[in-house]
Amino acid sequence: MTTHFERPVRIRFSHCDPAGIVFFPQYLVMTNALVEDWFNEGLCIDYAQMIGQRRIGLPIVKLDCEFSRPSQMGETIMLTLKVAAIGQRSISIDILGHSNGEARFRAKQVLVTTSLESGRSIDIPTDIANALAMFAPQPEFSEAQRS
Amino acid sequence: MTTHFERPVRIRFSHCDPAGIVFFPQYLVMTNALVEDWFNEGLCIDYAQMIGQRRIGLPIVKLDCEFSRPSQMGETIMLTLKVAAIGQRSISIDILGHSNGEARFRAKQVLVTTSLESGRSIDIPTDIANALAMFAPQPEFSEAQRS
Amino acid sequence: MTTHFERPVRIRFSHCDPAGIVFFPQYLVMTNALVEDWFNEGLCIDYAQMIGQRRIGLPIVKLDCEFSRPSQMGETIMLTLKVAAIGQRSISIDILGHSNGEARFRAKQVLVTTSLESGRSIDIPTDIANALAMFAPQPEFSEAQRS
Amino acid sequence: MTTHFERPVRIRFSHCDPAGIVFFPQYLVMTNALVEDWFNEGLCIDYAQMIGQRRIGLPIVKLDCEFSRPSQMGETIMLTLKVAAIGQRSISIDILGHSNGEARFRAKQVLVTTSLESGRSIDIPTDIANALAMFAPQPEFSEAQRS
Repeated sequence: MTTHFERPVRIRFSHCDPAGIVFFPQYLVMTNALVEDWFNEGLCIDYAQMIGQRRIGLPIVKLDCEFSRPSQMGETIMLTLKVAAIGQRSISIDILGHSNGEARFRAKQVLVTTSLESGRSIDIPTDIANALAMFAPQPEFSEAQRS
Repeated sequence: MTTHFERPVRIRFSHCDPAGIVFFPQYLVMTNALVEDWFNEGLCIDYAQMIGQRRIGLPIVKLDCEFSRPSQMGETIMLTLKVAAIGQRSISIDILGHSNGEARFRAKQVLVTTSLESGRSIDIPTDIANALAMFAPQPEFSEAQRS
Repeated sequence: MTTHFERPVRIRFSHCDPAGIVFFPQYLVMTNALVEDWFNEGLCIDYAQMIGQRRIGLPIVKLDCEFSRPSQMGETIMLTLKVAAIGQRSISIDILGHSNGEARFRAKQVLVTTSLESGRSIDIPTDIANALAMFAPQPEFSEAQRS
Repeated sequence: MTTHFERPVRIRFSHCDPAGIVFFPQYLVMTNALVEDWFNEGLCIDYAQMIGQRRIGLPIVKLDCEFSRPSQMGETIMLTLKVAAIGQRSISIDILGHSNGEARFRAKQVLVTTSLESGRSIDIPTDIANALAMFAPQPEFSEAQRS
């Protein structure tokens, strides 16, 4: 059983705002890339093929974030993803951005599998459901882990 | 008493993803622009001057979103902002993106006034507090308003 | 005969970098939006429909830019578009970003009409060619106009 | 003498437009990141420190691009940077984006060293000039290399 997936990300000039810190929508571009990497490398599901050929989308329907400390240009932060719950047509994940044990932000996301043809939700395809089964749903990031 | 601030936004090619709908972080770029317009035009506080000269930042510390229906390139959606609560150092707002009475997304945000010099939170400056006082805190967007 | 198309754009927080000025790729997001507005409002060709239903793309094949002066958050700059040349399958445009007679940047772009199905270039469709014919190709922005 | 600097980049969902290919301003976000990596790893000049502490900017004043073939989500393309010329206050670079010997785009850029305090150009600082001296100016990417 795998418990989490993580990748580092370097904070770049293009992520930062006139205050010199990450412009918050950029954190969500990063978490989108993390999900992409998780599918490709963690679940071994080709994300580009899923969207482009299989025409399966993975839109977000719910997002809860806390931004606890700013991140500066030049820093490298770690993004850690855990599965919170798997539904028939939805995947709930919990992402923590942190550096040296200090939480920077946390994002809880609910993603839904949809047909890009009809725009409607569909059951999670079997190969994806099987891959997801390797990731045991985890308890939320505790306060201890987050600070 | 003013109850809300709203501005339309056209969904552009650059907002959309390979599924042809708004890439969700772009919604948050739009809500950031809405807050900017609200300060400039609703509160009559010069936002650029606030950041650039007064060195007061307005980072987000909490964000809760629901994305109920996708928006397509070419559509114009209305963004409506209400004040939910005003604290000593924080502003809670509730933003609804909608079109023809159909909710597209909703974002509840908590913004904190900070010093861009120290990086620490500061009391809301008097002129901003006075301007905010014109916006009576409103109840949440009800289910009726949202659908 | 129409000679140009122009729209103002406000420089926003999200356009700016840690140096407090427009991050240059954002200028190109702005020129893309200008071309979109030009199609919709200047040429009366529905841009979203062109891409989405008619499956005609308008990728850029050549781009030459000069960035003469930085633009700051809070400024409004005018974007002026002229047609430089119309080919069988290409549209050459010249865009000037300026404020109070001061040039900020200039972008010369060559766009090609393509089929989004085959990915190949196609002749400019008749309705678009007819609309473009209203825009007389203009000489380049002169040094005088640019400064 | 070093002749070039290169890094791969994966084409992500967030880079792509409704046509399913890279939205061209995203290529320029990628080349900006490449320059950042080149400073940090190729020239051993801390880019974030250069901007943040030393207050030296590196704005672009001239950009010429050709976009020869589209890149699709899921692809990895190689970005290769060569130095074309070093001036007293400017650095001319030539960047090629390519995959399996096929050119995707090319960008010639002129960057100028500036003071972020005064906004004016300054001589390239000695440590940066010394580091740049390791990169012998190279002839342009030839047609052979580009196809």
